[in-house]
Amino acid sequence: MNGAGNLMDFLDEPFPDVGTYEDFHTIDWLREKSRDTDRHRKITSKSKESIWELIKSLLDAWSGWVVMLLIGLLSGTLAGVIDLAVDWMTDLKEGVCLSAFWYSHEQCCWTSNETTFDDRDKCPQWQKWAELMTGHAEGAGAYVLNYFLYILWALLFSFLAVSLVRVFAPYACGSGIPEIKTILSGFIIRGYLGKWTLLIKTVTLVLAVSSGLSLGKEGPLVHVACCCGNLFCSLFSKYSKNEGKRREVLSAAAAAGVSVAFGAPIGGVLFSLEEVSYYFPLKTLWRSFFAALVAAFTLRSINPFGNSRLVLFYVEYHTPWYMAELVPFILLGVFGGLWGTLFIRANIAWCRRRKTTQLGKYPVLEVIAVTGITAVLAYPNPYTRRSTSELISELFNDCGALESSQLCDYINNPNMSRPVDDIPDRPAGPGVYNALWQLALALIFKIVITIFTFGMKIPSGLFIPSMAVGAIAGRIVGIAVEQMAYHHHDWIIFKNWCRPGADCVTPGLYAMVGAAACLGGVTRMTVSLVVIMFELTGGLEYIVPLMAAAVTSKWVADAFGKEGIYESHIQLNGYPYLDVRDEFTHRTLATDVMRPRRNDPPLAVLTQDSTTVEDVETLIKDTDYNGFPVVVSRESERLIGFVQRRDLTLAIKNARQKQDGVVSSSVVYFTEDAPQLLASNPQPLKLRRILNLSPFTVTDHTPMETVVDIFRKLGLRQCLVTRSGRLLGIITKKDVLRHMAQMMNQDPESIMFN
Amino acid sequence: MNGAGNLMDFLDEPFPDVGTYEDFHTIDWLREKSRDTDRHRKITSKSKESIWELIKSLLDAWSGWVVMLLIGLLSGTLAGVIDLAVDWMTDLKEGVCLSAFWYSHEQCCWTSNETTFDDRDKCPQWQKWAELMTGHAEGAGAYVLNYFLYILWALLFSFLAVSLVRVFAPYACGSGIPEIKTILSGFIIRGYLGKWTLLIKTVTLVLAVSSGLSLGKEGPLVHVACCCGNLFCSLFSKYSKNEGKRREVLSAAAAAGVSVAFGAPIGGVLFSLEEVSYYFPLKTLWRSFFAALVAAFTLRSINPFGNSRLVLFYVEYHTPWYMAELVPFILLGVFGGLWGTLFIRANIAWCRRRKTTQLGKYPVLEVIAVTGITAVLAYPNPYTRRSTSELISELFNDCGALESSQLCDYINNPNMSRPVDDIPDRPAGPGVYNALWQLALALIFKIVITIFTFGMKIPSGLFIPSMAVGAIAGRIVGIAVEQMAYHHHDWIIFKNWCRPGADCVTPGLYAMVGAAACLGGVTRMTVSLVVIMFELTGGLEYIVPLMAAAVTSKWVADAFGKEGIYESHIQLNGYPYLDVRDEFTHRTLATDVMRPRRNDPPLAVLTQDSTTVEDVETLIKDTDYNGFPVVVSRESERLIGFVQRRDLTLAIKNARQKQDGVVSSSVVYFTEDAPQLLASNPQPLKLRRILNLSPFTVTDHTPMETVVDIFRKLGLRQCLVTRSGRLLGIITKKDVLRHMAQMMNQDPESIMFN
Repeated sequence: MNGAGNLMDFLDEPFPDVGTYEDFHTIDWLREKSRDTDRHRKITSKSKESIWELIKSLLDAWSGWVVMLLIGLLSGTLAGVIDLAVDWMTDLKEGVCLSAFWYSHEQCCWTSNETTFDDRDKCPQWQKWAELMTGHAEGAGAYVLNYFLYILWALLFSFLAVSLVRVFAPYACGSGIPEIKTILSGFIIRGYLGKWTLLIKTVTLVLAVSSGLSLGKEGPLVHVACCCGNLFCSLFSKYSKNEGKRREVLSAAAAAGVSVAFGAPIGGVLFSLEEVSYYFPLKTLWRSFFAALVAAFTLRSINPFGNSRLVLFYVEYHTPWYMAELVPFILLGVFGGLWGTLFIRANIAWCRRRKTTQLGKYPVLEVIAVTGITAVLAYPNPYTRRSTSELISELFNDCGALESSQLCDYINNPNMSRPVDDIPDRPAGPGVYNALWQLALALIFKIVITIFTFGMKIPSGLFIPSMAVGAIAGRIVGIAVEQMAYHHHDWIIFKNWCRPGADCVTPGLYAMVGAAACLGGVTRMTVSLVVIMFELTGGLEYIVPLMAAAVTSKWVADAFGKEGIYESHIQLNGYPYLDVRDEFTHRTLATDVMRPRRNDPPLAVLTQDSTTVEDVETLIKDTDYNGFPVVVSRESERLIGFVQRRDLTLAIKNARQKQDGVVSSSVVYFTEDAPQLLASNPQPLKLRRILNLSPFTVTDHTPMETVVDIFRKLGLRQCLVTRSGRLLGIITKKDVLRHMAQMMNQDPESIMFN
Repeated sequence: MNGAGNLMDFLDEPFPDVGTYEDFHTIDWLREKSRDTDRHRKITSKSKESIWELIKSLLDAWSGWVVMLLIGLLSGTLAGVIDLAVDWMTDLKEGVCLSAFWYSHEQCCWTSNETTFDDRDKCPQWQKWAELMTGHAEGAGAYVLNYFLYILWALLFSFLAVSLVRVFAPYACGSGIPEIKTILSGFIIRGYLGKWTLLIKTVTLVLAVSSGLSLGKEGPLVHVACCCGNLFCSLFSKYSKNEGKRREVLSAAAAAGVSVAFGAPIGGVLFSLEEVSYYFPLKTLWRSFFAALVAAFTLRSINPFGNSRLVLFYVEYHTPWYMAELVPFILLGVFGGLWGTLFIRANIAWCRRRKTTQLGKYPVLEVIAVTGITAVLAYPNPYTRRSTSELISELFNDCGALESSQLCDYINNPNMSRPVDDIPDRPAGPGVYNALWQLALALIFKIVITIFTFGMKIPSGLFIPSMAVGAIAGRIVGIAVEQMAYHHHDWIIFKNWCRPGADCVTPGLYAMVGAAACLGGVTRMTVSLVVIMFELTGGLEYIVPLMAAAVTSKWVADAFGKEGIYESHIQLNGYPYLDVRDEFTHRTLATDVMRPRRNDPPLAVLTQDSTTVEDVETLIKDTDYNGFPVVVSRESERLIGFVQRRDLTLAIKNARQKQDGVVSSSVVYFTEDAPQLLASNPQPLKLRRILNLSPFTVTDHTPMETVVDIFRKLGLRQCLVTRSGRLLGIITKKDVLRHMAQMMNQDPESIMFN
């Protein structure tokens, strides 16, 4: 009994690593939750003992909010730094500021005193490379030199980015959202949210965006924010030691990431809810809200856009929209849906080719080649030369009286004098037609190049490229409608809402709607998309057009395939992700899915009081199951509980080291009391403490749709199958995923991990 | 075998009502879901047979969107009609339009041609009652007559409202949100969402709001929209025959209700998600979004506010806010939290008194008395005389140059000429100080009277009264800060952001923040609240102040008690509502909660092949359980399945009527094949079809926190408890709720329904 007493003491203070998970394994949400409740109970009961314990319990209760505050501060700061660095480096491709080389073009000309409002972009302090090197600002020679240096800088940036990723943090590539979705659904990928990934992703993101590739910083910012979240989790054992609680923090961090990416805190929370998160209790909603708020506020304080606004593309339209305009808006929705389908199919096909052919072996070369092609093709066209977010910003803008852009080259009617912000529809001048051609070329270029860019081994988001495609298409449609309305205001559709001299069509609004539609087609967001769009643009009046386009785009895209780009990439990579949205409608039962199948060897089980240490060790050696059911006896097959392989290994190892008398022939007891044994028998090993006494069971007749539902909602790792009280088999999450893949006629072996 | 064959045919076409629920019972979500999947499968497989079936299956797939469209249209229309009727009837208390009696004051003066901008409110067409009856518009006599008629009209309206509710639809009273929450969580209250309730609630809502009582129309509009949802469910068997699917529609309808109540579609969706709904899959999110959009759009087309805006209180501020202002904003948050706590405690205490004393027996008298007191006290104060939404609107407004309100009686500096919309801070005139006193009185009045009003037997929402309390408090604080900043701009806190002659404090913004804080304190919304507020006011720039106030208010209120007003009313009424937010942290196990308890008679079970029809009938007569577990035999106690009482009763009744040879001594078989019996034995009754072969089980060692989680997430009605494969007992939702009440030291018998 002495040994058993020791054992109890020793088990009360559990040995290290018990209850943790291995890399590439799935967590058990119910178990994590119940472990947290235990911890909470312990702290609450201790808190009544002394003031110190009370303070500790209060600190524990507030630690969640502290973590949120820290995440918000750090991710806001990082986003601000990234914005500033990208601004500077993007301009560095074209020229340099003479007064202070660390100024971007805009900052350089702002600080210069000599400039007037009109030529703000052409201050003497800012010199293009050709001008600086040869003294000639104009001419073919200067153009070629600038062109050449532009390409050179782009290649340098992208080479640095891809090399840093390859050498220091291979997990830093891509947008990271598919992996974060998988992690949040309860999967472990060690290092994916580590410190190195954070550092390298931040640096390479700046390089990748500055290189002019067709990619955005929004998706990667979510990854960066999640890395911050993971970093701060390690400060509090509440979060670092519980994978379930950690995921609550990560969900909130994802919200903070989108919040700073777009300056849209509410949109960020909704994005986390709709798109990324798996388990999202209301408590997390409030915390995400707080983290997103702090992050957005920090970013505002850094003020990278120099206009003290939270948002990325601020526009203010003054004209209402009309019912008849819903037709082009819905057409833009259809375009967005088609673009989404095309992009997803083409991109997945290309990524599959990368995975399966020689192509995947030369990631550096691929990035260099794509950067080169992008730079060569982008420079001649003014709409692709500048950064994509500047392009979107210009496309969203309404043409004011002072606008100098080519897109605003309308023929003014000298007879009309109206207030500045209410300019009537005017005929387009040659600049507009010129711009239309360039925009059409830019559209084709963006569509093609984005397909090849997304998925390369550098940080790359696709929010901005998708929005750019939509904004270009939308602006073209908008100008077309505007000119049609101007030249044909006697047509019946225009008669009622577009009198001559009225300002009835806002092409910038079409660009905004188009951007929403294209982003929706690719990601299949709806509510969060609309909220982001209207936080982004301040255009609260335009919810209906945005909603109409977003819903149409989703319908059209869904008609060609249910999966958004992130789900498609999850599937491509074979992550064990049980999508909440997939509906399982097949008529299979638990008995069809469980293992062992017919003709398989029987289920590997332990008995509660007749297995020896040696038997257990043999079982562990011979099988690779993650856990074993414990039954009363092999004959009755009545289930007692379930024991994890990892815990079993650790417990036996510990017992053999620390507990006298435990030898290979010791009997392992899972019962409450070990029977009194003769002295000649070896010391028994009591392992009830590591036994899960409430394993989840379903009957063999349970429809698989219910089983899938249970796995999803409770976040199970495995589930035992019984018939009239007898243990029949086991279903793991991987079995469920395999079965679902099979039912959808996909290769079940594509599900790779546990 | 002939009989058995008949039986099978007859069971394939199930007898009516099988699988339905009785009134005041809880539904089983898993079962509803699996029934819907069956239905879906049937339609999909049939759709391959003919074009007609294909069309039918397409119609079925689109029926969800059709229902959403109809809900949006009807609830938008109803909201518009209610708005117009309330406007007219509120003004009817003061006077009448001579040119057309069905015009409200505003419409009357709009249509009149003689008026100029300045005296828009004083057109000759609109006459107060005293003027119309005596010819004198001014003087003490006219005042008294108007006062008297105001009270009379108020009493008439409220008498009509309470009588209509009592006579025709008792369920039409209150805000309806606690009951809708309960219904959405899976409870059946027949008639609560019926046609009569819809009709009477719409009519009495207009009467109640017009009577000038301190209540709003926002909560009841959610109820009205849910009634619309329920109405349209009956058009499609997909929704009318499946309680689970019906609740998806109702969740979306609730979103549409808030959408039209405030003109805030996105806020509506979030309200439904955060506050009302229980089971909210992503599909419902998109549909809610659509319904909310259609509803808001329909309302906009009706245009009841006459300004072609979606929103109720449109404001446009021009000044930014400063960091230092966060201090008063957070103080307003604290006030909101304290108000929430005070209101909930006082209101619940008063409602409990109403339930338990004689007071509850005279609802008509109570309503009349409260209306009388409200009218008598409200008339003399201009801020309480007008309708509450007008009051809020005025409080939110920034003082422009042309504002004629008393609140905007500032002393203008004649030397300063600035643009109209950028007026610097000015010293307050006597009108402002006068208004402050009246507002302080109005604040006390609103606080006290709202406590007594909410919960009376008329439709009553508390969004608007709560917002009014907050807006008054906020405006007072705002003016105080403004004057302090004006008179002491050399103080260190004002020095940096408030130079003389600058417009640095916007009192209207304080009113908005105060309104959000008070609404948050009462309802404990956060994200949805902020979204509603900024959709409501168009003030996208002010997310941070709103969020700060909302979160503070929630923290403060939560410190005094976790429950919001709706949860408190649910608890007061003893509805079986399993709150998603309550955390269960006690250390009890399933075995402590399950029935039978120690010393109870054993569990009532059926055996699979040895119970006769008579035994079953006796069991049904002697017990009132909702269902019975079926076991292999009484000795082994191994579980086979679970059968519902209702299904069992119906099956036996049907068999006795339609099936020859089924007599009292017939054996009931739940096995797959009934054994071959001698001809002398009576015909057996096979009931495997009504047997649920996959009942939910947990082991007796399962912690109650896990059981609670399972009940919540899977929406179970009952769960069987086993130990090593043997059936031990049963836990129903009611047992869980009772146990939770007991653990929180509440009366477990307050949980009333099944």
